[in-house]
Amino acid sequence: MQHPPQITDLIERLAKLPGLGRKSATRLSLYILKRPEDEVKGLAAALVAVKEEIRFCSVCHDYTDDDPCPRCRDPKRNRAVVCVVETSADLITIESSGLFRGVYHVLGGALNPLAGIGPDDLNIQSLLDRVDRAREEGSPVEEVLLATGSSPEGESTCSYLLDRLKAKGVEVSKLARGIPSGMDLEFVDGVTLKEALENRRRLP
Amino acid sequence: MQHPPQITDLIERLAKLPGLGRKSATRLSLYILKRPEDEVKGLAAALVAVKEEIRFCSVCHDYTDDDPCPRCRDPKRNRAVVCVVETSADLITIESSGLFRGVYHVLGGALNPLAGIGPDDLNIQSLLDRVDRAREEGSPVEEVLLATGSSPEGESTCSYLLDRLKAKGVEVSKLARGIPSGMDLEFVDGVTLKEALENRRRLP
Repeated sequence: MQHPPQITDLIERLAKLPGLGRKSATRLSLYILKRPEDEVKGLAAALVAVKEEIRFCSVCHDYTDDDPCPRCRDPKRNRAVVCVVETSADLITIESSGLFRGVYHVLGGALNPLAGIGPDDLNIQSLLDRVDRAREEGSPVEEVLLATGSSPEGESTCSYLLDRLKAKGVEVSKLARGIPSGMDLEFVDGVTLKEALENRRRLP
Repeated sequence: MQHPPQITDLIERLAKLPGLGRKSATRLSLYILKRPEDEVKGLAAALVAVKEEIRFCSVCHDYTDDDPCPRCRDPKRNRAVVCVVETSADLITIESSGLFRGVYHVLGGALNPLAGIGPDDLNIQSLLDRVDRAREEGSPVEEVLLATGSSPEGESTCSYLLDRLKAKGVEVSKLARGIPSGMDLEFVDGVTLKEALENRRRLP
């Protein structure tokens, strides 16, 4: 044992976090030791608070401290358009753009048979139920926008949802694929180029 | 406000840690949300524990939960050789080598007039007092090994300590400078090369 056990314990716990190796965990621990007690206790309390106070919204499955979440309760949002994302982080990316004013549905990941993640492990049934319930309540979902990732898992999740939603007679759309803004053509991969060519737009 | 306030608060607190930007802090926060409550509360408790239970050793000024620290109390260590380091992290580096069995003295940094760090801001007086006290107690310090860094601040701290310690008639040594093991000569800087040449060893 080199450090006192309390420091070693903190280093080991920090080293388990993603992106932090043992060296960064050690540097962080020694930094934390030098910070004011208030600040460190504030961080500790913030960690406990996210675990104790944050739940999943029963409608969209995003993180919230109040169920349903503020976005699902917001009367100014268009409930007829549901944007389906893999994660809360994806939701925030779209939300930050300020370009979408519908509501969301967070799947909690993407289908990945190799990792044992099937439809029952994601919030898929609740999306289908949500579509049914909206129709029963007389305010049907007019469009489901599939904004899953462009990874193989994201694409297969997209296809799976397309089949299930089409069977319910809902309009389904997905985010356009193409050359990202600001990217040099020489660096564009083959799959993206193929989609960009197939979906080319005729200019006026 | 995009995330619930508890998540935003955690992200902001994590983003203040060195080496973590807002993006990594967000990723970490969402990771923490998914971990078991026990694990997150354990990390929070570990943070509080280092602040509440860790003190400075009154002899060597290293971090400890018990004063004097286990190293200063260890009867198998040679108290006649004191290794002076800038930080606790430096101490651990030397200690991990297993090559040094004397005792330590942690300065808490290096002299840096530009940043306003003078001799009174470091544990220098206590090093001098320690040398005096050891002599009075009949077990004098025979060698002070200056293991400050090879930065300009480390070197000037080394010179300053050399003067103060020589005035007390103590033997003072410093770590050898030279070509680090495994480094190609072409990448060695001029200062290191100069020291390596001046201190070249005649082979048998």
